[in-house]
Amino acid sequence: MKCSVVGLGSMGLGMAKSLLWAGLQTTGYDLDPAALKAFEELGGRAAMSPGEAAEGAAVLVIAVVNAQQTESVLFETGGGALSLSAGSVVLSCATMAPAEARGLAARLEALGILFLDAPVSGGPVKAADGALTIMASGSPAAFERARPCLEAMGETIYELGETPGAGSAMKVVNQLLAGVHIAAASEALTFGKRMGLDVDTVYEVITGAAGNSWMFENRMPHVLAGDYAPKSAVDIFVKDLGIVSDIARSERFPVPVASAALQMFLMTSAAGMGKDDDSSVARLYAQIAGLDLPQPAPTPDLSDDDATVRRDNVA
Amino acid sequence: MKCSVVGLGSMGLGMAKSLLWAGLQTTGYDLDPAALKAFEELGGRAAMSPGEAAEGAAVLVIAVVNAQQTESVLFETGGGALSLSAGSVVLSCATMAPAEARGLAARLEALGILFLDAPVSGGPVKAADGALTIMASGSPAAFERARPCLEAMGETIYELGETPGAGSAMKVVNQLLAGVHIAAASEALTFGKRMGLDVDTVYEVITGAAGNSWMFENRMPHVLAGDYAPKSAVDIFVKDLGIVSDIARSERFPVPVASAALQMFLMTSAAGMGKDDDSSVARLYAQIAGLDLPQPAPTPDLSDDDATVRRDNVA
Repeated sequence: MKCSVVGLGSMGLGMAKSLLWAGLQTTGYDLDPAALKAFEELGGRAAMSPGEAAEGAAVLVIAVVNAQQTESVLFETGGGALSLSAGSVVLSCATMAPAEARGLAARLEALGILFLDAPVSGGPVKAADGALTIMASGSPAAFERARPCLEAMGETIYELGETPGAGSAMKVVNQLLAGVHIAAASEALTFGKRMGLDVDTVYEVITGAAGNSWMFENRMPHVLAGDYAPKSAVDIFVKDLGIVSDIARSERFPVPVASAALQMFLMTSAAGMGKDDDSSVARLYAQIAGLDLPQPAPTPDLSDDDATVRRDNVA
Repeated sequence: MKCSVVGLGSMGLGMAKSLLWAGLQTTGYDLDPAALKAFEELGGRAAMSPGEAAEGAAVLVIAVVNAQQTESVLFETGGGALSLSAGSVVLSCATMAPAEARGLAARLEALGILFLDAPVSGGPVKAADGALTIMASGSPAAFERARPCLEAMGETIYELGETPGAGSAMKVVNQLLAGVHIAAASEALTFGKRMGLDVDTVYEVITGAAGNSWMFENRMPHVLAGDYAPKSAVDIFVKDLGIVSDIARSERFPVPVASAALQMFLMTSAAGMGKDDDSSVARLYAQIAGLDLPQPAPTPDLSDDDATVRRDNVA
């Protein structure tokens, strides 16, 4: 059975790896030649367009960042929709509005193509281990056809009913919480520092107390290490809390807590940290309030060429 | 060794129970005769004032709601401070500003009395099981004298240094997170409902995903059961996030996420739910947006006298 993956960023590449390890014949496509090369090094077959990736595929996994990119991958010139045969499945993993997922499903249905609204949670490490949480909705036929792919990529697969949009709605709920928890963790840790507490001690106490969250426990170690290399970037939450905010407005539902968190991610991005790790929200609070958070251990400089530049950066 | 407890609310009564079960001679005081009676039924000795409770006590545990009440218990007419002997310890458990804890410590020190700034986390059930998390700071002498009490009440005891105020600062950090997480859980669960998701399924998926928090997992079952009988009341977080907000302003530290959460607790209290369970924030979102959350199972009506009133309430 042939599975194809379009979008080989950190998540998509990990998912492609899981598919390959499960013994599935896997073709991949990404705009970025470096991503495509990394995929080929894992043993995958590179395609030159989404359409080429889709040819002959039983399942087309789309692991791009939003609904607009998913639509382009499927329906622009060289897109996947016209190359897929009837009865194949589009497995859509981007975070999007439930109505957008329903819209894509309807357009594909008109072509005889099945659609699974299947956002994922867990990050790149779990993606590469086949250990994602997948929140999926779609027809029983779509689930059945896509099952080998779902089982290769996911440790926990939630089947949330037959209506496309339920998977996306659940992902939206999860991202609302995840984003708020990162902003709150950043606010609380730096406020503790302002009150004279040691940040390592705050981490130790809070992770054993009622104030803990999955995100506090997972992200604040980056702050304690002074390491803001992006595991997941600030701009991902600018996007995802932006989606939360857009849907909430269109549904006439107030989300004041998520809105406050979105503003903190926006401020962090505006201050030049959009591509850095999302725990950089803590760095923003510290910059604003003039607090010294832990500094990273200097990395050994192995390159002669840009040694001067690097030393400037470190200094 | 004699321990006394002033403040026999749900937390204080649980703590007194832990002290009694550890074999410590325990005297208690509360303004409310019913609380005092419950304490006597556990085998404790009731006092008629904080001062009487303090007489001969090695440790005076003060389990009231804030700094003002703690000060009254100690320094008003009939208060504990003048009855305590030199070398005894005041173990202060209320959530307060670090500066308030330092102020109380200094006034007691002038009388030769030791002070432990020792807020607790865990709720009434853990209090009664001797399983609290205690975040304490104070002199080594204060820790040594209070140790039998600390070990009777706490499962995890963090010693956060010699300066009173560090315990309170840690509690403030914890309450910031706990309050934000309850508000975010309420916002996310009801938003999921608005998008057509089943709330039980949201609970199942989120508790296994990156959006989880201790508070989401602990409080949202109350919403799923439609049970808003107060395990911990909305007004506790109006108070605690109010303390967070006050300290943040005095420290010139911005807390936009905690402020949004505080407004949600205030709205819930303003809508008449201040004495109900703090998960009532979810009920407020649902009321605002016209959503039907689960209803409680009707409780059997065992009283003849007020049957009509109760039926009115249920209808």
